[in-house]
Amino acid sequence: MKSLGHGANVEEMASLYGKNPKEIIDFSSNINPKVPEVLEEVLKEALQNAKAYPDIHYTVLRKSIATYLSVKAEEIIVGNGATEIVYLLMKTLNNKLQGGTLGVMNPTFSEYERSSRLSGMQIKDLYLTEAGNTFEINQAKLAESLDEIDALFICNPNNPTGHVQDLTGIIEILEAREKLLIVDETFMEFVAEEEKLSLVNKISQYKNLIIIKAVTKFFGLPGLRLGYGVTSNKTLLEGMYNYKEPWTVNSFAEALTPKFLEDKAYIKESKAYFIKERERMMNTLSEIKGLKVYEATTNFILIQLFEKTASELKTNLFKKHNMLIRDASNFKGLDEHFIRVAVKSEIENNQLIAAIREELNHELY
Amino acid sequence: MKSLGHGANVEEMASLYGKNPKEIIDFSSNINPKVPEVLEEVLKEALQNAKAYPDIHYTVLRKSIATYLSVKAEEIIVGNGATEIVYLLMKTLNNKLQGGTLGVMNPTFSEYERSSRLSGMQIKDLYLTEAGNTFEINQAKLAESLDEIDALFICNPNNPTGHVQDLTGIIEILEAREKLLIVDETFMEFVAEEEKLSLVNKISQYKNLIIIKAVTKFFGLPGLRLGYGVTSNKTLLEGMYNYKEPWTVNSFAEALTPKFLEDKAYIKESKAYFIKERERMMNTLSEIKGLKVYEATTNFILIQLFEKTASELKTNLFKKHNMLIRDASNFKGLDEHFIRVAVKSEIENNQLIAAIREELNHELY
Repeated sequence: MKSLGHGANVEEMASLYGKNPKEIIDFSSNINPKVPEVLEEVLKEALQNAKAYPDIHYTVLRKSIATYLSVKAEEIIVGNGATEIVYLLMKTLNNKLQGGTLGVMNPTFSEYERSSRLSGMQIKDLYLTEAGNTFEINQAKLAESLDEIDALFICNPNNPTGHVQDLTGIIEILEAREKLLIVDETFMEFVAEEEKLSLVNKISQYKNLIIIKAVTKFFGLPGLRLGYGVTSNKTLLEGMYNYKEPWTVNSFAEALTPKFLEDKAYIKESKAYFIKERERMMNTLSEIKGLKVYEATTNFILIQLFEKTASELKTNLFKKHNMLIRDASNFKGLDEHFIRVAVKSEIENNQLIAAIREELNHELY
Repeated sequence: MKSLGHGANVEEMASLYGKNPKEIIDFSSNINPKVPEVLEEVLKEALQNAKAYPDIHYTVLRKSIATYLSVKAEEIIVGNGATEIVYLLMKTLNNKLQGGTLGVMNPTFSEYERSSRLSGMQIKDLYLTEAGNTFEINQAKLAESLDEIDALFICNPNNPTGHVQDLTGIIEILEAREKLLIVDETFMEFVAEEEKLSLVNKISQYKNLIIIKAVTKFFGLPGLRLGYGVTSNKTLLEGMYNYKEPWTVNSFAEALTPKFLEDKAYIKESKAYFIKERERMMNTLSEIKGLKVYEATTNFILIQLFEKTASELKTNLFKKHNMLIRDASNFKGLDEHFIRVAVKSEIENNQLIAAIREELNHELY
């Protein structure tokens, strides 16, 4: 697995520059830095659970997610991260369409393209339109491309741009044209207007809709590996189960997730923290000369550098400040001047802001 | 995932018969009932690890497995259980052969067939020959079938028959014919003559050999999900990495496995326990009328019932004794009279033996 386009990881960079990986602050991954308090309490229970195979049908787990989303358990398919769901879906689509074309709204997460190519699907690259300090889907432009695609993949809120969009108009256009809409809502829990903007409550109304979500980003444990798909389209679900490998969700994820989803206090508090902290971070970053901050609705912020390249800034932040940021230049539609940084704790964020200021405006020091 | 042929699980059976799943002793899965003591100590460390994505290259994990096996880290590919490795391998073979044929030595684990069919490969069913109270590969018969296959899948020791075989002759025949040999050594750690019978030390000599192994069965934590492939065939490894989805091995498996593999005292003690306890169990079971016990070299025992069907005995053991055994009738080459039982703790094994005796010889009670 040499180059998957997810940027270098902490260990690789640390070994390259002779640093201790434990001393690096990682702003390159988009993960909640705080985990639910219930975690340590239930860890021993999870360990007991790991002494057997996971339930091959994940019945309890699916019920718990269904309750959390107010949908039916049979409308949920669980996977090893959102990634497994993406791959299962692409295999299913390719099998159904026998070489159809997937529209991908760029810049976005690279696994949509990799999974569809591996499955045999064609890719039609579509692009967001930059508007002020945000990106958005141009509906008229999209409508022109619909003849060329069988399904459309949108990440909402989008990684790496951080914008979120009301997709109600788009789902209606696609329904009228009998095209599938795949929405990756992995980061939707971070959005202030989640209830209004998530399409989860639309799944019974639109059979041409599947939503992909993740548990482990919002709850700060991406290493736990749990994602899921939500759809009322039975044919699509059956197709995905046909390709599904057994026991891909581990017992820790199986045991811990229901506890997390019930922890309403943690969910409320985390969400409030990100809403407030990203606003503060965007404002403070905007005061630095030599960069443009894009409007973020999640736990990461896209930044354009006017002079320095992403690669230069990344290297300097790592070497001099022990911080890892995401060089966003390999996202289609972005260039060598884009970086993405995570929203972490207030103290860490202040360290990052100070370091970026120092690196971009070094004549002041 | 309705019927994957792995037998019913505890929860399903319990709900069917209105029992509490926690009261059931599960003899249907082949898992070490004892876990390494180091586990609870390192669990908090593993939790810290889960707060970040796993290393996408699993460098430390592969090094640890390589040390354990005395091979090179680049000869190891890790997966979500042995199952992921099986699926990756089948995709790779199908891509290389464009519809080749896989020979499968039955009765055996059903995922070999499912994975190869899903990948587009053809299946040629081969069968073990029963000889006394064991099963074995008939080398002359195998040689006759070699023209019809491109690769051969052997589980060694075999699930569900429990026999182990010296495959040195077979790897040489296959090498001469330029066929790939895939050996699933998931249960090899339980074998007394492991050092002599495992083909791991042959991988540098035979490029047409790939071995699949698992960590989580021997160490009693199948829910942790970790398996791996071992081969010196770089083309095969590159093919598998081409299909590999990112982050399929979770952070708990990533952090705990190196500790397990270093725990030589646990490994030695577990192995000694199974060698002694399965011998005792086979002897005691053999004294029961109405059944035949097959020679076991692992942590499970295959039994043929002369009068009762597997389904009857399974139902009675569950309903009256709260025990779940594996109805082995859906393995190709076996029939409705075969069951498979796990070797668990001495006390539990005695309970099982007493219950089987009661059910088969009920005229005595």
